Amino acid sequence: MIIIPRNPEPLMSRLEELGVQHKRLRLYGVDLVVAWPDVDPSSLGLGSGDVVIPGGHYQLSSSKWRRSSVVRVGGVEVGGGDLVVAAGPCAVEGEDQLRAAAAAVKAAGAKLLRGGAFKPRTSPYSFQGLGERGLELLRKVGGELGLPVVSEVTDPRQVEAAYKYVDAFQVGARNAQNFELLRALGETDKPVILKRGFGETVEEWLSAADYVLLGGNENVILCERGIRTFDHTLRFTLDVGAVAAVKRLSHLPVCVDPSHPAGRREYVEPLALAGVAAGADMLLVEVHPDPGRALSDSEQQLTPSMFLDFMRKVTAVFRASRST
Amino acid sequence: MIIIPRNPEPLMSRLEELGVQHKRLRLYGVDLVVAWPDVDPSSLGLGSGDVVIPGGHYQLSSSKWRRSSVVRVGGVEVGGGDLVVAAGPCAVEGEDQLRAAAAAVKAAGAKLLRGGAFKPRTSPYSFQGLGERGLELLRKVGGELGLPVVSEVTDPRQVEAAYKYVDAFQVGARNAQNFELLRALGETDKPVILKRGFGETVEEWLSAADYVLLGGNENVILCERGIRTFDHTLRFTLDVGAVAAVKRLSHLPVCVDPSHPAGRREYVEPLALAGVAAGADMLLVEVHPDPGRALSDSEQQLTPSMFLDFMRKVTAVFRASRST
Amino acid sequence: MIIIPRNPEPLMSRLEELGVQHKRLRLYGVDLVVAWPDVDPSSLGLGSGDVVIPGGHYQLSSSKWRRSSVVRVGGVEVGGGDLVVAAGPCAVEGEDQLRAAAAAVKAAGAKLLRGGAFKPRTSPYSFQGLGERGLELLRKVGGELGLPVVSEVTDPRQVEAAYKYVDAFQVGARNAQNFELLRALGETDKPVILKRGFGETVEEWLSAADYVLLGGNENVILCERGIRTFDHTLRFTLDVGAVAAVKRLSHLPVCVDPSHPAGRREYVEPLALAGVAAGADMLLVEVHPDPGRALSDSEQQLTPSMFLDFMRKVTAVFRASRST
Amino acid sequence: MIIIPRNPEPLMSRLEELGVQHKRLRLYGVDLVVAWPDVDPSSLGLGSGDVVIPGGHYQLSSSKWRRSSVVRVGGVEVGGGDLVVAAGPCAVEGEDQLRAAAAAVKAAGAKLLRGGAFKPRTSPYSFQGLGERGLELLRKVGGELGLPVVSEVTDPRQVEAAYKYVDAFQVGARNAQNFELLRALGETDKPVILKRGFGETVEEWLSAADYVLLGGNENVILCERGIRTFDHTLRFTLDVGAVAAVKRLSHLPVCVDPSHPAGRREYVEPLALAGVAAGADMLLVEVHPDPGRALSDSEQQLTPSMFLDFMRKVTAVFRASRST
Repeated sequence: MIIIPRNPEPLMSRLEELGVQHKRLRLYGVDLVVAWPDVDPSSLGLGSGDVVIPGGHYQLSSSKWRRSSVVRVGGVEVGGGDLVVAAGPCAVEGEDQLRAAAAAVKAAGAKLLRGGAFKPRTSPYSFQGLGERGLELLRKVGGELGLPVVSEVTDPRQVEAAYKYVDAFQVGARNAQNFELLRALGETDKPVILKRGFGETVEEWLSAADYVLLGGNENVILCERGIRTFDHTLRFTLDVGAVAAVKRLSHLPVCVDPSHPAGRREYVEPLALAGVAAGADMLLVEVHPDPGRALSDSEQQLTPSMFLDFMRKVTAVFRASRST
Repeated sequence: MIIIPRNPEPLMSRLEELGVQHKRLRLYGVDLVVAWPDVDPSSLGLGSGDVVIPGGHYQLSSSKWRRSSVVRVGGVEVGGGDLVVAAGPCAVEGEDQLRAAAAAVKAAGAKLLRGGAFKPRTSPYSFQGLGERGLELLRKVGGELGLPVVSEVTDPRQVEAAYKYVDAFQVGARNAQNFELLRALGETDKPVILKRGFGETVEEWLSAADYVLLGGNENVILCERGIRTFDHTLRFTLDVGAVAAVKRLSHLPVCVDPSHPAGRREYVEPLALAGVAAGADMLLVEVHPDPGRALSDSEQQLTPSMFLDFMRKVTAVFRASRST
Repeated sequence: MIIIPRNPEPLMSRLEELGVQHKRLRLYGVDLVVAWPDVDPSSLGLGSGDVVIPGGHYQLSSSKWRRSSVVRVGGVEVGGGDLVVAAGPCAVEGEDQLRAAAAAVKAAGAKLLRGGAFKPRTSPYSFQGLGERGLELLRKVGGELGLPVVSEVTDPRQVEAAYKYVDAFQVGARNAQNFELLRALGETDKPVILKRGFGETVEEWLSAADYVLLGGNENVILCERGIRTFDHTLRFTLDVGAVAAVKRLSHLPVCVDPSHPAGRREYVEPLALAGVAAGADMLLVEVHPDPGRALSDSEQQLTPSMFLDFMRKVTAVFRASRST
Repeated sequence: MIIIPRNPEPLMSRLEELGVQHKRLRLYGVDLVVAWPDVDPSSLGLGSGDVVIPGGHYQLSSSKWRRSSVVRVGGVEVGGGDLVVAAGPCAVEGEDQLRAAAAAVKAAGAKLLRGGAFKPRTSPYSFQGLGERGLELLRKVGGELGLPVVSEVTDPRQVEAAYKYVDAFQVGARNAQNFELLRALGETDKPVILKRGFGETVEEWLSAADYVLLGGNENVILCERGIRTFDHTLRFTLDVGAVAAVKRLSHLPVCVDPSHPAGRREYVEPLALAGVAAGADMLLVEVHPDPGRALSDSEQQLTPSMFLDFMRKVTAVFRASRST
């Protein structure tokens, strides 16, 4: 349960006495206490102005206590009324490749630069990324172009180093329930783009967000990237219903990654349009200056010229779906 | 394989000689011959102007031989550049209910009236529909308001009777691979709105369309209505990737039913917007004058006032996604 | 709800008065009344010896009113304590093929002969079966060898003709929710082997069984044949948990078809063993005298010599799992 | 590709020259070189007795180069011809609880003791385990009873500490693709019981095993624990087909966890029997001295008396399925 007490001290003592686990947090400018498992509020000696919100598997990410939140990545507001597009190569492969991608996506209107440095590849025999060197390049190129940068971390031991380079951490589908990693990110103050696992329910996804929020980090962006289903016509099944659901069940901003479910570049645009129409605040898209030569995901990265068109379309659909 | 011969007679004789199954059809104004399994075209004695398209599990519904088709329901063109919305109650419950629904959906801009008469209910203890009496009401009310009507058939033995009343047959998800029903509909000349089964692959869906087309009925509209996945936050998972896929793999117009995957009315609009953004040409939506009293699907039917808003939004997103 | 009244007449009148739908049936030697939706039993004027079982989506197939049932196919008891194996070719292709298969499966210990005559093929361009001619051959060869025969029907219009030839009807996965077909079979008195649809929940499967039972036909055998999941290493995922579940939720005997989920013959035996260990009373297996030449499912049909080995193993595991 | 050279030195130099990634390993007493991506073997200057096995997403876990392997946990052989059962509480809750569980499972014939100390719980508000204190208790109680112990790790930073206590590491479904954890375990020499993720394909599961093997740790046991599907009658769908598949595609021993897919204790036994019948070499089962008081998974843990029965049955089915 979440309690927003006017005076937290006696509440904390009371919870201590009752042997109920709890934590005091300041999130979005609100002083609150999370306590679990739920207890009868009448046992807590609360005052008349104190607010109590019943708990569940997830609480801090729930819309039960807060309608919507804005998360700032660098200076860019996600969830604030404008569509934010983060774009860039699947993997940082070198400085030239990255700079070409970054310039192209900036020119087309992307507000954030993405690029993988620690790559969690299904097979150990696939390209594993440049590691910290990749993050350095990302920082450098992003800095030159004035684009805040986003990159994935896959291990709690990477968090400290990555913190120096990135404006937002990305947690990939394969680590969506790597709770030690989520806890480590909850102790930082930088945004976390939390992908949904491809076998993860909506409830589990929001519970994973609570791992970060419970650490005191309020900057969580949920990211839908497609789930596993019986149909393999595309690589994954983009779950637009889940986008619509988390917009109602949670106050957190929502991102859609259309590249991974598409699997092939011709499907990236329709999936992005569908995601935006279903309510996404942000898109995370793979763009490569020369996709044919990419070291990973070469089939699904957009070319710079496709991306120009893409930006025009997603912007138009975003406006139309929010207009009336 | 599909062959478009300038002179079909010798080709038919040759296929006969070779013992290859085949059928001559006129579809979309084109005289063609389907033959299966594929044989070496050089064995067929074709002339230089004859066209040969290699086959597969599906052929007639494939975009290999035709880019796009328009299907007319009553006088309404589906796939012709305007979004078509078919709306109405889940089930025809009585004349007043149907007339109220029909007037409301017409006023909001729907072009077709839908309503179930033969209801394929999961449990035999649920409301089974009014049967032929429901079709009579649909015809009557549709006629009064100038709305062509759409209703489901569930048995080849219903086709002849239903033909008299409906402007388009609907095949539901549970009969998506009821091949005897599809064959029976293939022998008529009225449009068939063919829903995808909730456990059916895209390839199987297009193969099912071929059962209708092979009978000589060219008026097939594909309809995505959500698939079964591990996540049950919504009732089904609307597969927008499949919508995008069949727009590329097939020439047939594509419809989205947002009501069944939504399960609850608050999710109908975002799913419809996503479906339209992904490429749908048509929507099939449940609207009831008083959803709380509906005999089936009471949770997911829109009210007339929600539907007004809905129409404004889907129209705006349709235009934005087709504009540039 | 199911009511087992000592005196049905006044109950029927009372239900009539209340406007509650109901049907009187004699199933397994018990006179009962099914009524729906459930009403307060105290409103029915029941006597002290009358039994009332609350309803649900499925009722007649439920174990709430009956622990277990035996179904007789020809003279063979299914669910009676011995494992029953029905085997034979995927499709009846001709008299010699069928006789060779039948002789082989009988020699190995199969008690029933299976063979497809009406084949519901995903693609209209695949072999569609011999139709009624196939049923005649099945009857003839089964008669010669003293094996009762099982074959699939796909259309209510086939039921009357098929009734003359088969000892049990099979309903395939694609028609698992073809309710008109189920109703037609419910009006006969021959056993129905009801496959689960590959996208059908356990609850829906049992509700489908109720369509048959509600017609008065008590001879239903449930058959699990694999569901659609994200993993395609095998053709379908055999759901042994569902086998265990329906053994508890229902009184009906349970069959497993290991051939369709296997997709390849090397997997048929382990899946059959798993199905038997999970509780199956019966197996339905594809055996072909020369699988390489089969007109359908050539990859998954067992050879006669594999089937000999198979029978030894499944019998041993059946005994071990029931022994202690 | 895997190369088993009689003389590795010149091969290593040649791969170096060609710029092909490679690693020399000694696994199961064999000196081999893994190289990726595959190159034309004729470019490697191999001798006539050198063996070359083409690669893929997974290589070291593949049966292409080795038919079957035995893994020793403490002194217990897994994959060696006898069924091995590891049993114990979901979570170590205290010394008395653990000792009671351990004594019961030993008496019934279990050869290994399992118990969770680091619990990866979906919700941060659920019991998180005793951590290192739990491992100490496990070591102590296992030592007293002569049972080697198995426990889960969830973070590469835990590996060093856990190494002191456990005889085998367990990797849970949520960390099945936590590649940094797998790499860390690959650098140890203790067995790793690698669960399949509930949304993971068989190919991905074997690729994950390669992450461990590539580190030089040959002691990997694959563990199937149920996948996510549309049907939720049980908690997960035990994929017996995957058990049969990895017995053919890989040389590694295979374990089945029937407790997590069951979700309720009545289903643990039939799932275990099915897993064993499909080919499992080992079972991992939750047993609690008083399940009603368990701090986690209270519904699915067996009581000691159920476990006695369970052991009798699984042993009988194991023997029957291996006999002929």
